[in-house]
Formats: sequence, C-alpha cells, structure tokens
Amino acid sequence: KDRLIAFLQSFGAIQGKADGYKYAGTDRRGYAVEPGAGAEKGTVLGPVPSLSDVLASGVGQRFSFELGYDQAMMMFQPVGGMDAIPKALERAVGAHKITYEAAATGFANVPGGVEVSWKDKRGREHVERADFCVVATPPHIAARLRHNLGDAVGNALRTPVPVSVGKIGLEYRSRWWELQDHMYGGVVPTDTDLSNMWFPSYGFQGRRGTVIGYYNVGPNAEVYGRLAPDDRTRRAVDQGVKIFGDRYRTELDSAFSVAWHRTPGLEAGWVGWPNQDGPEYKLLNEPQGNVYFAGDWLSHVIAWQHGAFTSARKVVTTLHQRVMAA
Amino acid sequence: KDRLIAFLQSFGAIQGKADGYKYAGTDRRGYAVEPGAGAEKGTVLGPVPSLSDVLASGVGQRFSFELGYDQAMMMFQPVGGMDAIPKALERAVGAHKITYEAAATGFANVPGGVEVSWKDKRGREHVERADFCVVATPPHIAARLRHNLGDAVGNALRTPVPVSVGKIGLEYRSRWWELQDHMYGGVVPTDTDLSNMWFPSYGFQGRRGTVIGYYNVGPNAEVYGRLAPDDRTRRAVDQGVKIFGDRYRTELDSAFSVAWHRTPGLEAGWVGWPNQDGPEYKLLNEPQGNVYFAGDWLSHVIAWQHGAFTSARKVVTTLHQRVMAA
Repeated sequence: KDRLIAFLQSFGAIQGKADGYKYAGTDRRGYAVEPGAGAEKGTVLGPVPSLSDVLASGVGQRFSFELGYDQAMMMFQPVGGMDAIPKALERAVGAHKITYEAAATGFANVPGGVEVSWKDKRGREHVERADFCVVATPPHIAARLRHNLGDAVGNALRTPVPVSVGKIGLEYRSRWWELQDHMYGGVVPTDTDLSNMWFPSYGFQGRRGTVIGYYNVGPNAEVYGRLAPDDRTRRAVDQGVKIFGDRYRTELDSAFSVAWHRTPGLEAGWVGWPNQDGPEYKLLNEPQGNVYFAGDWLSHVIAWQHGAFTSARKVVTTLHQRVMAA
Repeated sequence: KDRLIAFLQSFGAIQGKADGYKYAGTDRRGYAVEPGAGAEKGTVLGPVPSLSDVLASGVGQRFSFELGYDQAMMMFQPVGGMDAIPKALERAVGAHKITYEAAATGFANVPGGVEVSWKDKRGREHVERADFCVVATPPHIAARLRHNLGDAVGNALRTPVPVSVGKIGLEYRSRWWELQDHMYGGVVPTDTDLSNMWFPSYGFQGRRGTVIGYYNVGPNAEVYGRLAPDDRTRRAVDQGVKIFGDRYRTELDSAFSVAWHRTPGLEAGWVGWPNQDGPEYKLLNEPQGNVYFAGDWLSHVIAWQHGAFTSARKVVTTLHQRVMAA
C-alpha cells in the first residue's frame, strides 16, 4: 500500500497524507512564463483544478492505450508515405505481373486447378486458369463473388463484420500547432464525432503541414461517410474550431477524406470476427481444394500490415510444401 | 474513487473487485511468440509476478521522471552531435575572434573599463583591456582567479556547490539491443553504480552503435572518476554484463569516458545553489562595476543550454541598454 501511494504521489504529483493527498499543480502543467536567467523562476500555468475535477476529466486514461503492445509511439515511417510499401512490393514482384483497376467476379475449383473470372477497367470479362488461387479480397467481398466452394465457405466469408472507418487530411498553410502550441506530433482524443485527431510526426518546423482532422469508426464514420467531401471538411473544421479556435479554419488550405466502407474493393476499414475460435475462422484458414484465403482478416493482428504479411507468408509456405511434396 | 479505481484498472491493468484487483498480466509484457496468421494468437511473456512483487520492484516510478517539463522524450538532436551547437556559434561569431586553449588568470575593474589576464597554451601571460567583461566560467573557477571585486563577490562565487558527473560511451560492433531486445533508444535506470544507461535514439538498424554505459552523479561519479580510463571501462562493462549478459563485453569495440569534475575549465558537471533566493545569487546577477557574470549557473535552468542562452541574452541586453543610455 505504501508503494502504491508512493507511486501515486510520484506519478499523480499529489501531496502527502498531511495535506490530504492534495494536488497543487506542478511544472508538468507547463509554464505561462518559462524559467530563465537571473530572477526568472518561471510561472507555472494556473489555475490548478481540484483533484476530483482532474479525475472527472478522465485524464490519464489514454496512457493505457499508448502502453498497448501495438500502439507504441511511432519511430519509423516509410519515406514517401505508407504507399511506399505496396510500391516496393510492386518493384519486387515486377509491375508487368500485376493488373490494376481489375475486379474479380468469380473463383472456382476445377479439375487440376482453379478458374478465376475478372473484369478489366473497360468492363471486359476475362477468365484465367491456374494451378492454385489465393483469394486476398476482404471476406465480405469474396462472399459476393461467384464460387463453387459451397455454403459452409460462403457462410464463413459472411461471418466477419465489416467496420466503417473514416479519415480526413487537412493541409494547413502554417504549422500553427508547433509555432503556437509547441505540439510536435501526437494524437488528440476528443469527445466529438471527430473521435481522434493526429498531428504530424514529420516535417517538424516546416512551412506547411497536414493534420488528420478525424479518424473515426462506426456510427461517426458513417455520418461523415454519407456527406459529400466538401461537407465532410466543413463539418470536421467546425468541430476542430471548438478545440483549436479560428486558425483551424483560417489557416486551412485543402482537404482530402476517405470513407473506407465506401471504397470499392475494400468496403470497410477492417473486419471484426465475432469469434476467432469458431469453425468459420478455422475453415477459411484451411485450403479449400485449390483455393486459399489470405489477409489480415485471417490473422490475430487484424487491421495491421503485420497481419497481412504473416497470413501471406503462411499461405505461401503451405502452398510451397504442398507442391514440393507432390 | 470510482474514477481513480477505473484509472488504476486501465493504467495498471489490474482486474476488478470480484478478482481482488488481481494483476494477471497483459500483452504489454510483450510476447514469447508474437501474434500472427491463422491460429497463432501469440503467447504473452510469463510467468506473471504477483501485484506486490510488481509494486515492490518500483516499476512505474520512472514514468514521473519522463513527465517532467524538461525531461520529455527526445525529438531533435543536432546533426553531428551536441558539438554542432558551439561550432555554429563559432561560425556566427567568427573563429578569429576566439582564442582556444587559453585560461583566464584574473579580472579586475579598472578606471573606465576592465583588465583581464590570461595564459595561452604555451603558458605565456597576456593582459587585455576592454570596456566591459563577462565572466562565463563556472563560479568555483572564477572564485580562484585574481580579482578586485571584493569579499562579497568572492564569497558569492564560492556558494554554489560543484556536482561530480561522469559518463562513458561504449561503441559496439553490432546493435544487439535492437536485434535481440527490440530496444530503440531509451534510458535504463539501474540500482548499480552505473546509475543510468542510455541506448541510442539515432542510427536505428545501423551497423554499429554507441551506448552510454553510465551517466552518474555524486559518489558514483567520483568512484569512476578516480579510475584510469581503461579501468572505468572494465568496471562499467562488468556491471553491464550483469544486466545484459556476455554480449555486453564480447561485442564491445572501444570506449571513451569523461569525468566532468576532473575536466580543466569545468571541474563539475554543473553546480547546485543552496538557495537561489539568497543574497549571493542576487549579487552575481547584478553588474559588478564593469564586470558581469553569465552562465547556466545564473539561471533557473541549470545544466541545460537553455539556462546558458537565457543568461547570455540577459547580460547582453543589460549591457546594450547601459551603453545606449550612456
């Protein structure tokens, strides 16, 4: 108990028993006037709220989130943005082996192999034959394609629940969050329909910068997703002004938003399984004749690239072993 | 109280009242096997210690340190190392205006100005006359120079207490802390005489790397400071092996250590004032005739460059105003 109180005094900066464990503020609040030379001791930001107000505000509840195993603070990001990773894969595979703007329309086990039908960007139908096929579309999309894998597979593909997710990038003409607020990166959780805002952790002290104005999930994402892009921007900026003031509007240059649940070929940010111990998850992780399924949604690291990579590696290894043993 | 318990459950990952607020471990401990594709849910590191063992270990007591206003995690460091800052100042001032490897031997107010005596690197004595002089040596060194500023100034200069500080850099042939321990930067506080160890927050995934093997203060710094450099390395490595195993010795390439309290011209890492509200601190912050004092030790941000910069700016501003008003 003494150790726990010592920790709370240290971490929570509360005083001792004699002072009723009062919180009287510390320099962690920041300064109205910074400490400096000579007589300038600095003036800590005031006024200090009561301990019950501090606790009631929910402060500290985000610390736990950042301590999550896959939520540590960012140290690396791909040069050129996340797109650099699929682009590197394209270079490794060879661009000529990839057909873009094409949509699968069906897949089937046929004697000695598979048959996959697809539409090119002009809407022409093609049919491809191969020894094996790996279906890496999201499961709710695979479920709608023509296939001959039976009802059990069809039902399994319809089991994971697509999650609506939205995000908006707001490009500003100045990095007012650095210049005025001394904020260098970080997430701002809000109790508005924006859910979370992000500040950039790159290009520090640069001329311009892009803020993630919302990153929301579920009903909030659906509200924004239903709006036209300009209306999304308007709504996001109106909400942000409540937190950051008029500069949130006046410094804005341009905006770009995505509603993943409305993006063709994805139709979700990610999926959630009601149960990853159930027969549906197990079934799709097994080869179905000559058809295999792969994706982050067949891993325990859903919504992360790590899940997609490990799933791909698993399927490729399984295929390799099968072919070598044949 | 409910909010406090909710925070402890979230932050401390303890369970509810029905389970006696038991700590049963979470993925924050890391994994023996990482979660991955298919059936691989991951295996959390075990075994889980008891809550009282966790509290007894003192875990979490460093969080408070990192929340300190001037102890936030590093975002920027000068390209080329900390030396880049004095080198940039040298370029701005003009190298020809600076004499290196010279030691002041005295300073005095004289009619209409000041007189400063100094020794060059060959030991030759020089005397310089000027309108004003800013003494920026550490106070315990200024106190030993010949001067005619009186006993009150002499006593004031002897008031701040020099602090012994030591540091060692250990260059390794591999970045084993990244490759084997997935540690990317950070401080390791120890209960050995090493005090703190630091891992590099730059050059990630590089070929080699330099670890700060100790950063210690007071008696621990004096113990290491009394040793010859090779003996410091031996002692630091012996201690580090207890924490990180044999690779701490076998991967070592070279070492460099500093004992600031034994460094000519500094003779301390920094100083501590018994009282920064007392007459001594006040006296040295005022002009003494044509002599001014400056340095981090005349600020409320001692041991940081910020303190030295704000003190320098204060003195230069005061001098400017005096000269312009004359």
